[in-house]
Amino acid sequence: MGTLEFGGQQYLDGRASDPRELGWMRGAPPPADKRISFDSGRVLEFPKIRWSLSHVRELAPTVGVWRGRGGPSALECNDNAAAIEGLSFVDMSGRTRRFDDALYDTYTDGIIVLHRGRIVYERYFGVLESHLPHACHSVTKSYAGTLTAAFVHEGVLDDRKTIPHYLPELRGSAWGDATLRQVMDMLTGLAYTEDYVDEHSGVAAYLRACGRRPRPVGYDGPQTLCDFLPTVNKEGAHGETVSYKSVNTEVMAWVMARVTGRSFAQLLHERIWAPLGCEEDGYVSVDPAGMQMAGGGLCASLRDLGRFGELMRREGDWQGKQIIPASVAHEVRTGGDPAKFPYAGLAGYSYRGMWWVSHNELDAFEARGIHGQLLYVAPKAEMVVARFASHPVATGAAHNPITLPQMLSLGRFLRG
Amino acid sequence: MGTLEFGGQQYLDGRASDPRELGWMRGAPPPADKRISFDSGRVLEFPKIRWSLSHVRELAPTVGVWRGRGGPSALECNDNAAAIEGLSFVDMSGRTRRFDDALYDTYTDGIIVLHRGRIVYERYFGVLESHLPHACHSVTKSYAGTLTAAFVHEGVLDDRKTIPHYLPELRGSAWGDATLRQVMDMLTGLAYTEDYVDEHSGVAAYLRACGRRPRPVGYDGPQTLCDFLPTVNKEGAHGETVSYKSVNTEVMAWVMARVTGRSFAQLLHERIWAPLGCEEDGYVSVDPAGMQMAGGGLCASLRDLGRFGELMRREGDWQGKQIIPASVAHEVRTGGDPAKFPYAGLAGYSYRGMWWVSHNELDAFEARGIHGQLLYVAPKAEMVVARFASHPVATGAAHNPITLPQMLSLGRFLRG
Repeated sequence: MGTLEFGGQQYLDGRASDPRELGWMRGAPPPADKRISFDSGRVLEFPKIRWSLSHVRELAPTVGVWRGRGGPSALECNDNAAAIEGLSFVDMSGRTRRFDDALYDTYTDGIIVLHRGRIVYERYFGVLESHLPHACHSVTKSYAGTLTAAFVHEGVLDDRKTIPHYLPELRGSAWGDATLRQVMDMLTGLAYTEDYVDEHSGVAAYLRACGRRPRPVGYDGPQTLCDFLPTVNKEGAHGETVSYKSVNTEVMAWVMARVTGRSFAQLLHERIWAPLGCEEDGYVSVDPAGMQMAGGGLCASLRDLGRFGELMRREGDWQGKQIIPASVAHEVRTGGDPAKFPYAGLAGYSYRGMWWVSHNELDAFEARGIHGQLLYVAPKAEMVVARFASHPVATGAAHNPITLPQMLSLGRFLRG
Repeated sequence: MGTLEFGGQQYLDGRASDPRELGWMRGAPPPADKRISFDSGRVLEFPKIRWSLSHVRELAPTVGVWRGRGGPSALECNDNAAAIEGLSFVDMSGRTRRFDDALYDTYTDGIIVLHRGRIVYERYFGVLESHLPHACHSVTKSYAGTLTAAFVHEGVLDDRKTIPHYLPELRGSAWGDATLRQVMDMLTGLAYTEDYVDEHSGVAAYLRACGRRPRPVGYDGPQTLCDFLPTVNKEGAHGETVSYKSVNTEVMAWVMARVTGRSFAQLLHERIWAPLGCEEDGYVSVDPAGMQMAGGGLCASLRDLGRFGELMRREGDWQGKQIIPASVAHEVRTGGDPAKFPYAGLAGYSYRGMWWVSHNELDAFEARGIHGQLLYVAPKAEMVVARFASHPVATGAAHNPITLPQMLSLGRFLRG
């Protein structure tokens, strides 16, 4: 059995950790040592995660994102699998890899490549199927950021206002003097850490409050998302440095829900799923008060994620209809201030409106989620790649050295 | 505000308990006194139930029943609402009621009437919408019973075998000497009570084991459905009297899952949802081991429930394709032995294969679920009625005196 090492630990490799082979949740009932349940608290533990991310709704309460009645929009196929799988590229450590091997090396659950709007490559691994929604994790943020920017464009929201203008509940919190724009761009100073491994981190407390991590016996902390957010204090200044923290997205989405009177799932349905002609319903995790988790709670089918990428590539136009204002998509592509971007692992990038912007030769911008979720939009290659994965390591550090050159080489190939 | 009395208690009536008016789960976040959450343990408490039954997935883990790619099958419309709403009938207490008033009096969330396969009446109330799956409760049993009977017909299952032939785990339990047929027909003697109000009842223990009722602090009972079922002991004899108990359905469905290697949701997809061309995905509640609750865990859209009724009315034929063996549907219509049927509230009925059989002038047979769920198939009137409701009282005793004459008068009207 193959293994790979990350941070000094050995993990089964992409092939050896195939969840079908490992037998998770098979049988009636599944054997005790092959069960995955929310109560066990280890649903994101490798290699269970290879099953969990395709079955989120079986582990927690969710709300549907209805696709509407329009029927799926056509995604024509122009298969080029043989050429794409045979591509080779040099990863950041100087090693030459084949495209198809790299899919296993990044623990890919599914990947779809669109070129000029047509599917040139589509493949599923493990337990993922084309109709099955997979966890988007923080790719969710880019959906939420795009909706928020559209409301700013329409004048429904004013991104120069500070958060308490919309949410008086947050007056005494870190966001008391943060503008909506700063929140949308993650330019806030928060006493909160986004560390998925540390049980004492801000993100762990946030997920416990939302009921999305098991609570210890005797837990007496915040009971819901909206109880938790007011407890986050300021640390440092707003406006100076990108500091990626999921709670900013939750605050932004809370503003949107408060002002529009629509839930995140309703807005996704009305503004994206139905007009785009998505082919499957998506869904969003909810907290114990029914608040929907815009920081990372969306699950979608791979093709529907691809459709969203294609919409952004076309600057909001979908078959002649302007679904998202062109300026919103254009602003994402233009990006934020690279001088305020501190993450060395994504050198040269900036962050804008809940998107990661590469400023590379393809003008690529990305939605990214933990454990390898990726929507890579490369306008200059007329390419969109949607990838779901279940990588053992949450952060991108483990897969970026493969993923980024892989996407760039694919874009160069398709650009011709 | 209007009220109605059941069992000496006053309840808001159907109009006054409209969940939109009462404001459940509205706002970001909903006010504390307007929240409904699983942890509160009161999701089926009236009037919260009027919201809950249209939002089950937001309260608990569920697995999807995929509709497939075929697109929805046509349900033509031949609207006859004015005539139907104006119908009047005499209920069992001798009171004359109008059809449309009776919808409120039975706390209807949605109703669809098919005549000769066409929609002649369709209406939604409160928070239910046509695309939104609603709790089917024990209507689920009739789906499961029909699938099981089809497997018996195909020789995959032998209904003369005793349960331990398929499930050795149940050798020492009540089902140790029960045949699959006896289980399918609820002809078992079990030390288990189906009382939804009593916290010490068998059904309460079953739901706690499945994680579908909150567990008290320090709970050390069975952790899953399949841990619970072996603890049910025999009481009395098998084969003598219909004794309606949800655990029989769970045993039946467990046999089906074990033998076919397919989960209940997969079987519903493959055998019903996809071939029928259902228009929305359904879903099924799951227990902590991922077992799917065939005793009452299905949620479906109203039209898709109507399609299933129409399939049974046509004896398994759907647009020229035999989806369920004709003999399975015919056997349901023929029914069981009325001499073994003990329920005075449904005088003249029998029970067969997880269906309630009226033996009335319309040859009607019914799928029934707590709080007013109903699928009423009346072959001699070429009529199918699917109704979702959220009645304050779980058992049919409170609404049968209205529902049964209402359905009969509607059938007589459509028969002409």
